[in-house]
This record gives sequence, structure tokens and C-alpha cells, in this order.
Amino acid sequence: MDFFATHEELLTTAIRAISERGYWSAYPESPSPKVYGENAAAEGKAAFEALLGKDFPLDQPATGSLSPEKSPLGIALDVRYPKTEPDQLIANAQTAWRGWREASPSARAGVALEILSRLHKRVFELANAVHATTGQAFVMAFQAGGPHALDRALEAVAYGYSEQTRQVPSVTWTKKSDSLTKTFHVAPRGIGLVIGCNTFPTWNSWPGLFASLATGNPVIVKPHPHAVLPLAITVQVAREVLAEAGFDPNVAQLAVDTREAPITKDLALRPEVKLIDFTGSTAFGDWLEANARQALVYTEKAGVNTVVIDSTDDFAGMCRNLAFSLLLYSGQMCTTPQNLLIPSGGIATEGGHKSFDEVTRGVADAVSALTADPAKAVELTGAIVNEEIPDRIDNARKLGEVVLDSTPIAHPAYPGAVVRTPMIVKVTDGYGSECFGPVSFAVPTASTADSIDIFRRTVGAKGALTAAVYSTDEAVLDAVEQAAVEVGVHLSQNLTGGVFVNQSAAFSDFHASGANPAANASLTDGAFVSGRFRIVQSRRPVAASQG
Amino acid sequence: MDFFATHEELLTTAIRAISERGYWSAYPESPSPKVYGENAAAEGKAAFEALLGKDFPLDQPATGSLSPEKSPLGIALDVRYPKTEPDQLIANAQTAWRGWREASPSARAGVALEILSRLHKRVFELANAVHATTGQAFVMAFQAGGPHALDRALEAVAYGYSEQTRQVPSVTWTKKSDSLTKTFHVAPRGIGLVIGCNTFPTWNSWPGLFASLATGNPVIVKPHPHAVLPLAITVQVAREVLAEAGFDPNVAQLAVDTREAPITKDLALRPEVKLIDFTGSTAFGDWLEANARQALVYTEKAGVNTVVIDSTDDFAGMCRNLAFSLLLYSGQMCTTPQNLLIPSGGIATEGGHKSFDEVTRGVADAVSALTADPAKAVELTGAIVNEEIPDRIDNARKLGEVVLDSTPIAHPAYPGAVVRTPMIVKVTDGYGSECFGPVSFAVPTASTADSIDIFRRTVGAKGALTAAVYSTDEAVLDAVEQAAVEVGVHLSQNLTGGVFVNQSAAFSDFHASGANPAANASLTDGAFVSGRFRIVQSRRPVAASQG
Repeated sequence: MDFFATHEELLTTAIRAISERGYWSAYPESPSPKVYGENAAAEGKAAFEALLGKDFPLDQPATGSLSPEKSPLGIALDVRYPKTEPDQLIANAQTAWRGWREASPSARAGVALEILSRLHKRVFELANAVHATTGQAFVMAFQAGGPHALDRALEAVAYGYSEQTRQVPSVTWTKKSDSLTKTFHVAPRGIGLVIGCNTFPTWNSWPGLFASLATGNPVIVKPHPHAVLPLAITVQVAREVLAEAGFDPNVAQLAVDTREAPITKDLALRPEVKLIDFTGSTAFGDWLEANARQALVYTEKAGVNTVVIDSTDDFAGMCRNLAFSLLLYSGQMCTTPQNLLIPSGGIATEGGHKSFDEVTRGVADAVSALTADPAKAVELTGAIVNEEIPDRIDNARKLGEVVLDSTPIAHPAYPGAVVRTPMIVKVTDGYGSECFGPVSFAVPTASTADSIDIFRRTVGAKGALTAAVYSTDEAVLDAVEQAAVEVGVHLSQNLTGGVFVNQSAAFSDFHASGANPAANASLTDGAFVSGRFRIVQSRRPVAASQG
Repeated sequence: MDFFATHEELLTTAIRAISERGYWSAYPESPSPKVYGENAAAEGKAAFEALLGKDFPLDQPATGSLSPEKSPLGIALDVRYPKTEPDQLIANAQTAWRGWREASPSARAGVALEILSRLHKRVFELANAVHATTGQAFVMAFQAGGPHALDRALEAVAYGYSEQTRQVPSVTWTKKSDSLTKTFHVAPRGIGLVIGCNTFPTWNSWPGLFASLATGNPVIVKPHPHAVLPLAITVQVAREVLAEAGFDPNVAQLAVDTREAPITKDLALRPEVKLIDFTGSTAFGDWLEANARQALVYTEKAGVNTVVIDSTDDFAGMCRNLAFSLLLYSGQMCTTPQNLLIPSGGIATEGGHKSFDEVTRGVADAVSALTADPAKAVELTGAIVNEEIPDRIDNARKLGEVVLDSTPIAHPAYPGAVVRTPMIVKVTDGYGSECFGPVSFAVPTASTADSIDIFRRTVGAKGALTAAVYSTDEAVLDAVEQAAVEVGVHLSQNLTGGVFVNQSAAFSDFHASGANPAANASLTDGAFVSGRFRIVQSRRPVAASQG
């Protein structure tokens, strides 16, 4: 099976898309039966359920099994995963590496794209696994965990393939009487460790995973102990395709651990580990950057996502759009706005002047409208992913004046789920670092100029993955854009429709910039792939090579 | 003056060349009057001499002047350079940065290429400056310090421009009823510190300098205190072009220090310094990598360049080629072979079996043939660049059996020059780290397999910038090539003609790989430029942007 030939057209289209940056997606995002077929949803759910309470079918050497997951929805998972010791994982990866590093960039791209194709065939099964392990509402679990993650993975493969083929593989070089044959070998860097997070196990892990694979590195995938299943399926599919293509399946391995006995630091410091992709807390990301010096470390951490509200000609649209952003997955996205910077004197709108309190009330009311019906609300909020968050909400309540309180909702389908609506607290202090969860701060500022100053200062100090501005004044939009470029955060302006600041579209939007403390990498740019391999060349006289 | 329009065709050709990798050069390497004109050499020399003993004309704020140079040829330089304090350099660069970062990639490429064009017009003056400060023979100083360095700089500009324009600058993105205008800003990283070396002040500094400039970063150029003039001319030209193009000339500044009062560590640790390009000792390169954590650090350090000699069908050609490589600039190139690994039982040649001693004698005799006439010899060896080297030669004499001794030569043109011919010492130990200078080691090995093992081990541990192999056996060539790819060093096979292992051609050969301890960067690949900036995007609804 020539996987490269099968997928070459897709790859070519993807490579063009990352340059052109218009809307393009390779995997349909609608879970509709019209798109995926009448039985796809039911079959995917059944396939997911068939995995529960059993040994996960992964042909990986193991010394035992682990079952560390805990569903935020209260779904009994009890999947048992092979426990493979770090020494074994490293040794397996080193052995498997040889064949993989010697494969051509196109052979590797073919394998990577076939893995994506097979993951796409299992997209409903994956969506159920993401839903169960993250607590995301099903549609979000499907879209973000399935097609959007596949798009991001494809994007990484496209960048990786482009980068490796930036120069010809070989050439005859002639200068006067000397003629040399030169060969440019892609020399992959070494083992790639991919450290997953609890909230977006596929979307955040696949880009690094596929970037490392495509550039010839074996990967060890270390899921968050509470969100193993989506990455276990990923590794299972990867191993299946690798074996079919004649490679050692240990090019992709799963490293499961528990919160009580973590193995991540051990793996991260191994001299053989040359690449690390991490999504998670600032503390651990900073630790990796400071300590895993033998590796190139790509991190996405946390920041203070900020909205500068100056004025609007669509007050209701602004409030609705912001409310939706706050509500999505209960503010547990790394891209959720946290700080709403609003002049204390209020703002101009198409309906006249609105005071600070009217603005915050407008956003709060829009949130309330979306949460009024619990059955509909949970399809946006999903569940609270970990037990620290309710305490954090309680603490936030003391930070200032509660504009909108966070309330529990009983999940109609999952009695065990902890659901909390977004909270908005008016504060004048304490908003300078991340408060992960459904907590946003409405910050009164002296003026929009002051807002921009605070934006620059807080994002400069703590970073951000997203920023937004609402203004009808071109000069304000320009000033915020200039500040955003300077502190290195992507900016959304005047979003009032169906695009939200938390969302980034593969092949068009860059996710994180690598230019502020919230992340040192971006999904995806040249820097995300170019260090994952090196070119090593050999050259010899033409006559000799004909001998 | 539209510098981009002036140079766009050159840039386009260069971008194609870095992909195609055949022979191409933008700047003629022959100093012949037929190429550069009858008066070029004399005028360049006169321009150089007019600089001596004076304040160097650089319009840069200064608190005093420094005159730290010491010519290996004994030429009295006594040029006085402005002394600018680190605080001032940093402040100037930060101020100058704004206009430069906001310029377009094409505007910056235009300026960079105009700088190269004007440097090319002063190529004989530069060659004299390189000759005087490095002790290189004039033709090498001209070629390596002029056209070849210009080619490497152009290559860096081409990579930098390509990388910034990898995606469209803006796009209209439409998905269903949402239509957004997206702008992709290039966000340069910050101040680039370029730390020059004594031996190749332009060739080794220009790639990082022009890569940083092209990607929107201001540069502070810190020359080696003994090789300031070539970089002072560089900065002078850069400032002149920057000012003409309407930019703050402090986008390029010169930071001169002395061996007694070095400022490099101070500058390297400044939080505003985000990029560092360094060529020099392993000790200082390692220090930078470990300590300048706020910056991306690109290093070229030292290694143990190795030649595996297995067999040859052109014994005389092999000996002549190796001898020339050892002789060039008295082994003071970072690419000069150090370890010659030869089976103790000898090798097969077209003239029958040659013993270990016959092989080493063959190389030694070829060196002697090239050094027999002192006037001709110094045109290859140049002068010894620093006073530590004669001591190192004396010490090397004690390491084993001297196959070829290093001898002083009186330089016919420069009585003050220290000239030493190459030395070859047969050793069984002590060859595992770099011995900078005209010292090579002939190492008897148990077999070629043992040679490959030693190659793998020593280069794996200490790195190398070049490697070579001589063999008539395809299996041996393959085995060495595989080992070279694994330890990440560029390999030259069976060179017997006019190409030498020490030479790398811009637009075709990669110099250093970044894949072994001798360097963490390569001239030039995508990784050399992709981290020097980030993309920061902004997006807004199309309707709003028309408002």
C-alpha cells in the first residue's frame, strides 16, 4: 500500500492552504448523519462503550496495567492500559527509530496521513472518548477533539513535509572541473515526548505528535492520567499503520501513569529525549523549559486572555459573542477571555452611552440567557474538569463585587457531573495571573488608554493566548493592534457573529504565538517544525560515484 | 530609492538557489583585475590604509575610543573605534527597533541587500582588513572574507525573507456567513547580539547578522577585539544604508571591547537581547547556551574533524588534497581535519598496499612539497592568529611520534608575522578533543571498522564540523555515511581534486549541522531563521473593517 500516493493530493492541498490562509478544512466538522452517515454516531458510541472496563487492546510490552481515568461526567471508564516502564519505552523507541529515520519524508508523510485517515474513520468513537475524559459537551468533543484536531495534525504534517523538502534530496554540483554528487539527508533529532492535557487531549497533542513523527522522530505519548483514552486510540491506530507500512510499531508508544506516581519528569530528563511537546500549567511548562535542557521544548502554558472594551455599534452582538466565549466549556479553554477591561466611565454604543455597570450587566445577562435552560446550557458548558475549580470559584467570589455568580447546574444526562456556569467578578486587583475555570474579571479602568496600558503590562508579564478588542474608533483598534503585536498576542476585533475569540481555525489562524510567556511555540509555524530534524549532507566526486 | 526593486531579481534567484542547491554564487570570487577592474585592488588597499591610525568614521554615540587590534601580520593598525557602553547600546537598539520591526519583510530585504551591494563595492578594502586582522593570506582573505561571506549573507537574507513570507500578509477568510479580514504581522524577536571571531570576522558573523536584520531585529555587533575592522566597515555601511532608507541607523551598532575588559557576557545576559549568534570556543559557546536563557542562542564551536582513510585509487590525489586542507590558513579553520584514522596494517591503493607509515609519509610529503618555497607557502598558510598556538604546537610534539614537524617560516612580506607549517603527530591517545592550530593527528586503528567506531565515538562526544572518508569500497563509504548521519556531521567522500573538506559553498553546502556538539546551528537552514520572529495575527469582520 503506497500511503503517500493515496494521500499526496491532500498533502499538496494542505501545503497550499497554509500559505494562502483562507478557509479550508480537510475533515467535516458537522457530526450530522448527512455528513457521516446514519449509523456513524451509534456505531462510534458502541465502539467506545466496548472499550470500557477492559484491557485496552494495545500490543505494547508492559509490566502491568493502570486505570487512572476519572470522568468529569461520572462515566465509569475503568479502561486498563498497559504500564510500560520508562527504561523500556526509551529502549523501544531507540530501536524503532532506525527504520523510521531512514525512511523518506514522503514515506513518513504517507504513514502520518494514513493514521489521520483511520482516526477520522473512528471520529465518533474518539469524540465519545474526548467527551467522557474531558467533560466537554458532545458536539465540542466531536468538533475540537475530532475534525479540528485532525486539521491541526494535518497542518503539522504539511509543515513538517515542506520543511524537510525545502531543498532537493540530492544534486549534481559542478564548478569548473569539479563535479560532486551531494546528498542532503534529513537527520531527525531523537525521541519526541508528547505530554497531553486533560482538557484537549487530541487537539493539543496531535500537532506535536505528528510534527515529530513526520520529521522522523519516534514518539512517546504521555497522556494526562485523566484523559488517556483518546491518546490510547491514537497510539493504537498509529502502531497499526506503522506495522502495515513495515515499520517497528514502537515508533509510537503510550506512556500511562497516575497522578500518584507520575513519570513525566523522569521521561522528560532522559538524554535520549530530544523533543518535548507540552500543554498544561505554567509551572510545569516553565519547569520543562528550565530543566529538560537536552531537548527542544515546545510549550503551551497559561496566560491572562484579555478583552479591551472601548465602544461598539452592536452592543447586543458584543454581549452575546462574549457570553458565548465565556460559556464554552465553562471557561476551561486556554483561549477563554479572563479580563474584561472597561472604562469606569462607561462606553459609547449604537444605543447611546452605557455605564460600566450596564456593560457588565449586558454581558452577564447574555450569559444568563444562554444558561436559563439547563439542558441547553450543559451543551455549551460541559462539565467541570477537576475538583480544584469549585474551590477556585469560591475564592474568586471574595476578590470583588460579584456581577454574575457561578451556579451549579444538574446535568440532565450525567448525575455525577459537576457543572458550573460562568462567574463575572468586578475587581480592581488580583486579575494579573490566570484563574483557570469559569471565572472572568470585569476591570474598571481610567480610560481606554489605561486599558491598553493594563493589557500591555499584564500580557507582557504573564502572557496570553488570545486577546480581543471592541471599538468603533479606528485609532483605538490600531493602538490595540500595535500593543498586541508588541506583546505578541493574537487579536480578534469586534467579533459579534459566529466566530469567537476562543476559536482558531487550522490552516488560517495561528494558535499561540510563542512571543509571550503563555507559550514558547505556535500551532503551527516554521519554528514548530524546523528544529525537529537537521540536514546532514554527504558529497563525492561524480566520477567516483560512478565507479 | 526602492532598494527592494533594485535587488528583487537577485533575491528571487537566491531563493531558488537554496532550494536547487547546484553551484551558484552572486559575487565573483576571483580578485582578478579582469573581474573587478584594473584599479580595484590598489584602490581597496589605499582605502584600507587610509583608515589606519585614525578614529574610525562611525557616527555612533561614544564615551571614548578603543584600539584593541593586534595584527598577526604585524601590520600597525591603530584604528580607534568608538567605545559605546552596553547600557547605551541596548537603549539605542530598543529605540531604533520600532521603525525596523514595523517595516515590511521586503523593505528589510531591500535594505539588507543594498548593504551587501555596498560591501561588495568595498570588497578589496574589506579583504585588506580581513587579511590584516586574521593573518589569512590575501587571496583567502579576499575570497572567504569577501565574496563567499557575501554569498552566505545573501543566503541568510533569502532564508529570512522566505520564512517571513511563508504565508500571505493578509487574507479574507469566509466560512458560511462569517467573513474576516486577517492580517499576519511579523513580530521580530528583539535585539540580536552577534559575537564575531578572530579568524573569519565576516564569513562567520554575517549570516547571523543578516538573518537577524532581515527578520526585523536590531543588531549589536561585538567583534573579536583583534578583528574589529572588517565588522566596523560592515556596521558603517549598514548604518549608511539604514539612514538613507529612513531608518534609525542604530538598528546596527558596533560594540567594541578589549581582551582586558570584555563586555560580551554583560551584553549576552541583558533581558532585551533575544538572539545571539556566536562563533568561537566551545567553552564560551557552552556558557552562552547555558546562561543566556532569555535569548535564542546560535553557536558554532569546535570539534574533532575526522578523516577515515580506508583505501584509495588515487593515492597521490588523496595526499595532495589532504595536504592542502591541512595547510590552508595553517589549520586554523574550524573545518580543518584534525584526526586521520588509518588502519595500523595499512591500506590498499591503486599502486598496491601502503603501510600506515607510508600513508602518513605520503600526506606529510605532500605538505612538504607545498611548503618548500616559503613565498608560496605563506600564500596558503597565512600567519598564526594568536600566541597560544606556538605553545600548543610544542605540547603536541610530546603527544606521540612526530611524523611531520611544524617549522617556522619567515614571511617574505611581513617580518612580524608568526608562520608555522602543519604538524602531523602519530598518536594513540589525546586526539579526542580539539587542538586548534596546525596540528593533526595520525591515529593507527585496528581496522576501518575500528576507525568508524572511533569516528562515531569521538564526534558523538565532542562534535565536528567536517568529516571525510577515502575508500574504494562502496560498503565502507555507505557505513561511514551512515555513521556521519547518525553523529550529525557533513561528510566529504574521496576528494582528490579542487574541492577540499574545509570548504563549504553557500547555496549548496550546509556549514555545520546543529546535530552534534560542535554547533547548535547550521548555515543556513530553516531553523537558523524561523525562530528570529513570530507571527502575530489580527482578525476582524469584513464589514467592520469597511466601516
